[in-house]
Amino acid sequence: MTRSILVTGGAGYVGSHTVAALLQRQQEHQDFDIVVVDDLTNAVREPGQKKPEALRIIEELTKKTIHFYEVDIRDAAGLSRIFESHSIECVIHFAALKAVGESVQKPLEYYQANISGTCTLFDVMRKYGVYKLVYSSSCTVYGEPEYLPLNEGHPTGKGLTSPYGKSKYFCEEIMKDICRSDTKWMIISLRYFNPVGAHRSGRIGEDPAGIPNNLMPFIAQVAVGRLNELQVFGNDYNTVDGTGVRDYIHVEDLAEGHVKAVKLFSQPGFSGFHAVNLGTGTGYSVLQMIAAFEAASGRKIPYKIVARRAGDIAANYADVSLSHRLLGWRATRTLDDMCRDTWRWQSNNPNGFKRS
Amino acid sequence: MTRSILVTGGAGYVGSHTVAALLQRQQEHQDFDIVVVDDLTNAVREPGQKKPEALRIIEELTKKTIHFYEVDIRDAAGLSRIFESHSIECVIHFAALKAVGESVQKPLEYYQANISGTCTLFDVMRKYGVYKLVYSSSCTVYGEPEYLPLNEGHPTGKGLTSPYGKSKYFCEEIMKDICRSDTKWMIISLRYFNPVGAHRSGRIGEDPAGIPNNLMPFIAQVAVGRLNELQVFGNDYNTVDGTGVRDYIHVEDLAEGHVKAVKLFSQPGFSGFHAVNLGTGTGYSVLQMIAAFEAASGRKIPYKIVARRAGDIAANYADVSLSHRLLGWRATRTLDDMCRDTWRWQSNNPNGFKRS
Repeated sequence: MTRSILVTGGAGYVGSHTVAALLQRQQEHQDFDIVVVDDLTNAVREPGQKKPEALRIIEELTKKTIHFYEVDIRDAAGLSRIFESHSIECVIHFAALKAVGESVQKPLEYYQANISGTCTLFDVMRKYGVYKLVYSSSCTVYGEPEYLPLNEGHPTGKGLTSPYGKSKYFCEEIMKDICRSDTKWMIISLRYFNPVGAHRSGRIGEDPAGIPNNLMPFIAQVAVGRLNELQVFGNDYNTVDGTGVRDYIHVEDLAEGHVKAVKLFSQPGFSGFHAVNLGTGTGYSVLQMIAAFEAASGRKIPYKIVARRAGDIAANYADVSLSHRLLGWRATRTLDDMCRDTWRWQSNNPNGFKRS
Repeated sequence: MTRSILVTGGAGYVGSHTVAALLQRQQEHQDFDIVVVDDLTNAVREPGQKKPEALRIIEELTKKTIHFYEVDIRDAAGLSRIFESHSIECVIHFAALKAVGESVQKPLEYYQANISGTCTLFDVMRKYGVYKLVYSSSCTVYGEPEYLPLNEGHPTGKGLTSPYGKSKYFCEEIMKDICRSDTKWMIISLRYFNPVGAHRSGRIGEDPAGIPNNLMPFIAQVAVGRLNELQVFGNDYNTVDGTGVRDYIHVEDLAEGHVKAVKLFSQPGFSGFHAVNLGTGTGYSVLQMIAAFEAASGRKIPYKIVARRAGDIAANYADVSLSHRLLGWRATRTLDDMCRDTWRWQSNNPNGFKRS
């Protein structure tokens, strides 16, 4: 059997861009099959199609086949069948629920999907002798920054306000303990800052169900006319213009970070748990993002300043030195690239993957 | 259907004593059926018997019937069948793995049993409209004490060294989030200090598999001749005699704390998450425990001072004012009671529940 990379949640936003980046790399190396498992909670599949739209489009763009399984990762038997059918070399684990606000309303769903699901995955991996994992973590684990930029040595788990953030922190702790208990494990936990942007083709991108939770898709939906107006949560933070500052990173840069992480597994002597930031190292304010998006799209983004949102912090951005040192990776795409690619995706697909 | 209390892990040490205390109370009130679910990971069942020894003996002592199901709480379908068959009013949730040292070796097993299991239980409870839970927590959630005595406002989750301790802390956080998301939930998390002792009958008690992890069963097995010598981990702590100080509490006191907690559910206006210490408020050193046990048993306990054990703290003991205020409960049994009852159990049953 060809060696395979299993991508859980590979039909989602970051997952699908990573699948695209892996297949792009495969065109150079021809070394891995890509196997995706996704329960389609957050993905669109057209009637009559076997595969979700994002994967169907990637196959079209790359002329490659993606093996797809519609399975919930909490289903140990379903996961086991995938490990029986493919020679899995390593796993990139995106499958999770990810809406911060929703997690406050539905904590049990979040803990079950994100923690029980991850534990079941680990259990099945171990059963099949697979010990290499790239984990989809978040800068949320740092809580309110004690200093900036945030490096990987910053304390984690303190004052976390959402079940989503706690679930990522708990999973990191679980992975640390697993790596301590058995040196066969190699786990790279990638702590994403704020992924934005879309594939250069303009054919895959972020497609949140309902009202977007994150700034960039919200701006894009205002630009395209799906939403009337942006709400800016607070302009009295201690930042350049009073609005919140975040480290936005292009999803294609992020995807390439995962490709680099997978390469690390074949480095002699590599083992254990490693947390690595994926960001650009630069923070932009909400007003700066609006201005950049207006410039890239040529559209006016009407906005209104409203009260701060509970749990929001003033600013965060990454210390990116470890990602460069360990992965040999750096974000290369600019804020303008992020806005332009988001706009290409959004304007070509005003309703996301759903055909109008 | 008679209203029932579901006790998960009810065949274990604290679980079985709580079942006994509930049935004792029932002899006064006749109000609840007792339903036990246990996967028998840590319980002995004699060949040909349907019920584990601890429950069989309790039935004999109380002349009451216990409904018993051999089910792993991660089995949602199995749990659901129990909720279909009984009118469950509230749940006392003991089912968990509990050996600190083993949890370092087998973290995934601990996280799956203690976190995934608890989430599955909550999911099934909600499905059947049951929102009242007493949770079996531990003073381990406090980590290294910042001050003594430990009250419930002491920070939790900082510097926890074992997957066992983390699993208890994570579950408390999950329960807090669930209570925030839906005011129907009533959860009392009982933070046990160090449960010791045995039922006054001398017929049920602590029966650890393999070498005991905790001091009291170790001392008892030395006293009865199953083990040769006690190892005392460090005598250079900043305590009365240099050995570690803990707040030991009689398991029958602890069991009565659970009975009181269940009563709280019927108090008008009670809701949300409440963490409550169950301890005596008094700490005893290892050497004090040895001396007390020697006095109670009339046996000499040979011991040897060895190096400190990683992760051990110098001293902890509880502030017990909240348990008194909220539950109307106080530990009444003395150190001598703890030793005498442990010795009665151990000397009557040198091999625990296993008939020799």
